[in-house]
Amino acid sequence: MTGSRLSTDSYKGVRDFYPDDMAVKEYIFDVWQQTAESFGFERYDASILEPAELYRAKGAENAELVNEQTYTFTDRGNREVTLRPEMTPTVARMIAAKQKELAFPVRWYSIPNLFRYERAQRGRLREHWQLNCDIFGSSDTLAEVEIISLAHQLFLNFGADPDTFEIRINDRRWLNETLAAAGLDETKSKEMLALLDRKDKIDNFEAEVEKIAGPDFSLPTEPPGDSGVARVLEGLRELGINNVRFAPEIVRGFDYYTGVVFEIYDTSPENNRALMGGGRYDNLTALFGGEAVTGVGFGLGDVTMRDFLETHNLLTADITAPELVVIPVESTENLEAMKVASQLRQSGLSVAVDFSDKKLAKKLAAAGARLSQYALVLGADEVNTKKYTVKNLATGDDLSGSLEELLNSLNS
Amino acid sequence: MTGSRLSTDSYKGVRDFYPDDMAVKEYIFDVWQQTAESFGFERYDASILEPAELYRAKGAENAELVNEQTYTFTDRGNREVTLRPEMTPTVARMIAAKQKELAFPVRWYSIPNLFRYERAQRGRLREHWQLNCDIFGSSDTLAEVEIISLAHQLFLNFGADPDTFEIRINDRRWLNETLAAAGLDETKSKEMLALLDRKDKIDNFEAEVEKIAGPDFSLPTEPPGDSGVARVLEGLRELGINNVRFAPEIVRGFDYYTGVVFEIYDTSPENNRALMGGGRYDNLTALFGGEAVTGVGFGLGDVTMRDFLETHNLLTADITAPELVVIPVESTENLEAMKVASQLRQSGLSVAVDFSDKKLAKKLAAAGARLSQYALVLGADEVNTKKYTVKNLATGDDLSGSLEELLNSLNS
Repeated sequence: MTGSRLSTDSYKGVRDFYPDDMAVKEYIFDVWQQTAESFGFERYDASILEPAELYRAKGAENAELVNEQTYTFTDRGNREVTLRPEMTPTVARMIAAKQKELAFPVRWYSIPNLFRYERAQRGRLREHWQLNCDIFGSSDTLAEVEIISLAHQLFLNFGADPDTFEIRINDRRWLNETLAAAGLDETKSKEMLALLDRKDKIDNFEAEVEKIAGPDFSLPTEPPGDSGVARVLEGLRELGINNVRFAPEIVRGFDYYTGVVFEIYDTSPENNRALMGGGRYDNLTALFGGEAVTGVGFGLGDVTMRDFLETHNLLTADITAPELVVIPVESTENLEAMKVASQLRQSGLSVAVDFSDKKLAKKLAAAGARLSQYALVLGADEVNTKKYTVKNLATGDDLSGSLEELLNSLNS
Repeated sequence: MTGSRLSTDSYKGVRDFYPDDMAVKEYIFDVWQQTAESFGFERYDASILEPAELYRAKGAENAELVNEQTYTFTDRGNREVTLRPEMTPTVARMIAAKQKELAFPVRWYSIPNLFRYERAQRGRLREHWQLNCDIFGSSDTLAEVEIISLAHQLFLNFGADPDTFEIRINDRRWLNETLAAAGLDETKSKEMLALLDRKDKIDNFEAEVEKIAGPDFSLPTEPPGDSGVARVLEGLRELGINNVRFAPEIVRGFDYYTGVVFEIYDTSPENNRALMGGGRYDNLTALFGGEAVTGVGFGLGDVTMRDFLETHNLLTADITAPELVVIPVESTENLEAMKVASQLRQSGLSVAVDFSDKKLAKKLAAAGARLSQYALVLGADEVNTKKYTVKNLATGDDLSGSLEELLNSLNS
């Protein structure tokens, strides 16, 4: 044992989840899960430990990411291991391994925790969770329509009003063609894409566009009628999704997406930023050999989700206390109280016995303070008569009877 | 891009969870969660990343564990980080940090993934999940009764017959006193504890006992009437739990437990080993200063749980396919199919559209092969009349009508 006291701080940049915070996280995960499964998506997962080469293989730009922004270390067997910074390489590995057995298109989702070694700053966490939804093996534009309508439904299922968020869609293939047609070479095209990618963060956007592409260039404000993005917009509107618009400035990075890309924005002025994004990518499994697999998907982080729900007052306080507390008057009745609790659990309620050595009034106050719904006080009378009274702590109503009678009432 | 193909293998000693395996894991976690919450336990969690000193602080024996059996590395900010090998130090840290605010006794549970660097061998995984349930801050023997009855209920809630498992209980304090009273010094006591700990693994147990303690020594077969273990046994029997017995050979390690200890054994002859264990420990938060907190709890691993359920045929095949598949006859009806699917989700069923380019018969066969419950075939007639037929693929029954009529029938 050391002489000095150990710190109770967590590791820098990660979070402890006490029951109140855990309840919020669980609520968010539950809605994510229910929504994804309502669209017939199947859940998968893998370990957070992955061979480091999984992230190195994409080329020099990526190697830098692995070296500087991931947790990568050598294990005791001299293997290089990385704590997964994103889920796509993992799911690509899994799809490639079973490519022959899977019946495409495949609809998969996952809620992994992801790790990035970032300089600690406000809101930049080293571990976060992310919902990943993907359709693999369909090149039909309807896959985009479905994945975006799933993203849309997620927000509705949290109770969000469609006015509070907006879906913005672009097409990377069309964008590349437009820049080439305007005479921009590869270097200038990359500059333009980089500029578009941070449009929201700069004041003199128009001037910067002119610097790169000259005074005559401007981005179209409507997509061509035969483009992928036009078909996706039409499909979404057919499904009754109207908080959606063409947004030629959406890029979402350089290397990954090859077709339609989209982002969802919070429309509240103080929070106008991308909440999530995704798009179409080709040849997901190229690194592993085998046939090319196309995919369309998105990621949505737990921190962003919680921020959105808090901004729009969509998180009500979650109660993690037992729904019913059995309170023995004297400690001699503790065991009897446990027997009663054990029976009452058949109602489906969560039931705990307060066998602390507090006085009766304090035990009742504690149950009320934690917002338990019911209390059952158990004294000598109850032990003798086998008749009990359950008090509704919110309404003050009483419910009396034998255990069987109480179970019937609580069940109904 | 590298020339050679990347391996699709996961990192050594960890598992990929494809949807079938994920469904089993989810089912196990769901039953764990429901059972713990039915007893009024609240869920917590933390990051898998912890400061390495959290595990070093307990002394030399523990430092060896940290150095040789954990994933410990230095981060880019020169901090030593460990992937948590167990949950207790984390929860001790969290309890110590909020000791003044928490209203004890506290009932907490968690389902963390844990990491150990072990030589790879059959069944020895480097990452596994574990249900942890603890009651903190109650020294009442009823806390032991409750935690063991919760463990018992877990098995019942999976459908296990009480004949298929057995709870074995001992008392470390009583055991230490018994060995001291028999004249064993500290060294001989430790030898005896180590021997007891591996009783099941050795053939000549009696001879080994005699070697350490002489020919006159034998362990009592009944606990003394006023001991903690006797009160726990009595309490459990009052709650109707009878698959429980005194087992003076249960030790559960040297350093940690200070009172009642217990293990649950599979009673099937081919699988007679401890499925889980736990017990009473004192001064959980000693390393962090502040007041002493006592606790009683247990851990139960996902691999062991699954083995038990498979041994006793308690795992039925989980179906992860969508419950209802909408099948367009021609791809021109794909979008209409998505509109229908979107409406049908209001029934609470999971609904997907098969917009693969397979022929109708193949799409129907695929839905049947994956054990989807319903199929809705959508052709030109359905688009025109807005009348649809949902076929129950198991019974062959048909259900026809407008979307509204179908929703009413599917909801009921």
